[in-house]
Amino acid sequence: MTDNKIEILKKIEDFAKKIYEEFERGNPKFEFIIRGNLKYIEYDAIKDLIRLKKTIGRREFFNLGHTRKFTQTILIAYLAKNLIENNKTASIREVYYQLKHTIPIINEDTFNSQKESDPIIEDLERTLGVIREKLHLKADRKGNVYGDLTLKDKKRGDEWNCSKLGMGGWSIPSTIEEVEIVDINADYVLVVEKDALFERLIEERYPEKNKCILISTEGQASRGARRLIHRLRYEHNLPVYVFTDGDPWGYYIYSVIKRGSMKLSHFSELLATPDAKFVGMTMDDIREYHLKDVTIELKERDIKRIKELMNYPWFRNKKDWQRQFSIMLTEKIKIEQDALAKRSLEFVADVYLVEKLSNPDKLLS
Amino acid sequence: MTDNKIEILKKIEDFAKKIYEEFERGNPKFEFIIRGNLKYIEYDAIKDLIRLKKTIGRREFFNLGHTRKFTQTILIAYLAKNLIENNKTASIREVYYQLKHTIPIINEDTFNSQKESDPIIEDLERTLGVIREKLHLKADRKGNVYGDLTLKDKKRGDEWNCSKLGMGGWSIPSTIEEVEIVDINADYVLVVEKDALFERLIEERYPEKNKCILISTEGQASRGARRLIHRLRYEHNLPVYVFTDGDPWGYYIYSVIKRGSMKLSHFSELLATPDAKFVGMTMDDIREYHLKDVTIELKERDIKRIKELMNYPWFRNKKDWQRQFSIMLTEKIKIEQDALAKRSLEFVADVYLVEKLSNPDKLLS
Repeated sequence: MTDNKIEILKKIEDFAKKIYEEFERGNPKFEFIIRGNLKYIEYDAIKDLIRLKKTIGRREFFNLGHTRKFTQTILIAYLAKNLIENNKTASIREVYYQLKHTIPIINEDTFNSQKESDPIIEDLERTLGVIREKLHLKADRKGNVYGDLTLKDKKRGDEWNCSKLGMGGWSIPSTIEEVEIVDINADYVLVVEKDALFERLIEERYPEKNKCILISTEGQASRGARRLIHRLRYEHNLPVYVFTDGDPWGYYIYSVIKRGSMKLSHFSELLATPDAKFVGMTMDDIREYHLKDVTIELKERDIKRIKELMNYPWFRNKKDWQRQFSIMLTEKIKIEQDALAKRSLEFVADVYLVEKLSNPDKLLS
Repeated sequence: MTDNKIEILKKIEDFAKKIYEEFERGNPKFEFIIRGNLKYIEYDAIKDLIRLKKTIGRREFFNLGHTRKFTQTILIAYLAKNLIENNKTASIREVYYQLKHTIPIINEDTFNSQKESDPIIEDLERTLGVIREKLHLKADRKGNVYGDLTLKDKKRGDEWNCSKLGMGGWSIPSTIEEVEIVDINADYVLVVEKDALFERLIEERYPEKNKCILISTEGQASRGARRLIHRLRYEHNLPVYVFTDGDPWGYYIYSVIKRGSMKLSHFSELLATPDAKFVGMTMDDIREYHLKDVTIELKERDIKRIKELMNYPWFRNKKDWQRQFSIMLTEKIKIEQDALAKRSLEFVADVYLVEKLSNPDKLLS
């Protein structure tokens, strides 16, 4: 067993021991850190990072309002311990099914739905100060990577280069903690929101011509994808550029990659990439590249979301971003990254990205 | 240029030539095959395959109700010709953006949304008798493959083994027409609905222990995934087993892999795998494996969908399936494949799949 595993098992054991001792004293309880929402997070403007305020909550076994969550936390900690000891991982859906049962006599279910078990997993992550991947619990997988990047699965021994897998690229699994970055031959990382663009750029041989690692997030980035981006930046010193749709949803994908999310603010340091830069689509791109006739009219939900984002502390004082949002609201338009195909299929690779990335003034941060 | 490409270009040319000649005669029109829905398809019970009835429709340039679609068809045929000649591919979203423009004088847009261009692409596929992948048009990508399967990208020269890529597996691109199956060391193909199960089985080393190729469809199977399954079956003679949730949506995933969909019924022969078998989850599994307490109550939309499926010609006369649907409706329950984790994480690999696949009586077809 690695030192890392022993250390994490010790954390679970200490957590359990303390509760056990409390039992002897008659009032079993444990303290935990309350989950992130606008009230419980703080925005570090200097580091451009969302952080969890360490607001302490308490769960007491003999408090009727707490008993259920108290018990659920113990069940999940117990499962995590078993998983680590047996060198297994479980998806958060499997966690739910594994632990779901009816407690005899009181005839109550341990969990009614996955909506109950997921937040308890997050509670435990915060309380132990250990990301779920290290507790051997996995979120869903999403995202692909392509480029001259040699990876190795330490557990299985496989080694492969992500530019030698045809158009497919490598499918990023839900956890990459066992993956070693063996070798990289690239100058930067380009993260794109959509698979269609990912395939377009591979077809144009953009990663080869521009020496970049290409990652598709398939919408909001998964934890696996965010960890990979973070590691390429901080273990291997590659600058990271993000390219999304020009709409509030795309801008938030960038924001989460860059400075973390509220929900996972307890691990922003591990998941976020604060000096990532934003390539596009910007509202200025529409004018600059003559794309007005391929914009899309805003819907009510877009407008609502734009106003929300404008008020988040990490957008509130950024003139560049406020300007983008304002243009969106005034002109009532948004634009997809695929819309660049209007100019030509090659345009995004041969003109747009080259122009944008060679001119730091054109990037947002 | 390959013979295949020359042949397809010839089809587009012939199509265009005919219309051109009609123009000279004063009434330009073309005939096309009307798209599949329950009215225009037929179910071949012997081959267990959904086929398109060749119902001929006609589009005339000088018929006001037809002009728009007539023009759109020509635009897409023109784009496909260019793509093939330049050895490029385009996503169906890019097709929309590429072709969208305002026609001067009449001031009308060629396409208002992708909802308008997608069906025209399908019309053209049916009319020319060529799948869109051969017209160099691509649907979205989805799905992953893992196992002792060596693939080669003919265009790029890359060659890789899908069991040597760590837990990630290979991400199936939107078209696999350029992918050659170089070598397989497996006895069968196991298709699973969800990525979480895909990762579970890789972690349990199920594909190695059971000599199988593992494919995840991530919900309804993409065209790329269906083509791969089809080719593994018919080019390499591997039996195909499908494992989905025990609900109408899962059963329809199986049905589409096996006998095709209504919408794409014009190419069932290329996309479907009629002798695929269904592993589970069945309603009998719930009793057999003591899973009652991890079932989920049916929602209104589940019930509606079950009744729809029961009436489809390809389910109507199948006693086994009617029985599954009836139990679902009577007990008002469905079950996810992840629910097997209730028994243990290893259960699905060590017990469930082994028992089911070794006993042909337990499979549905």
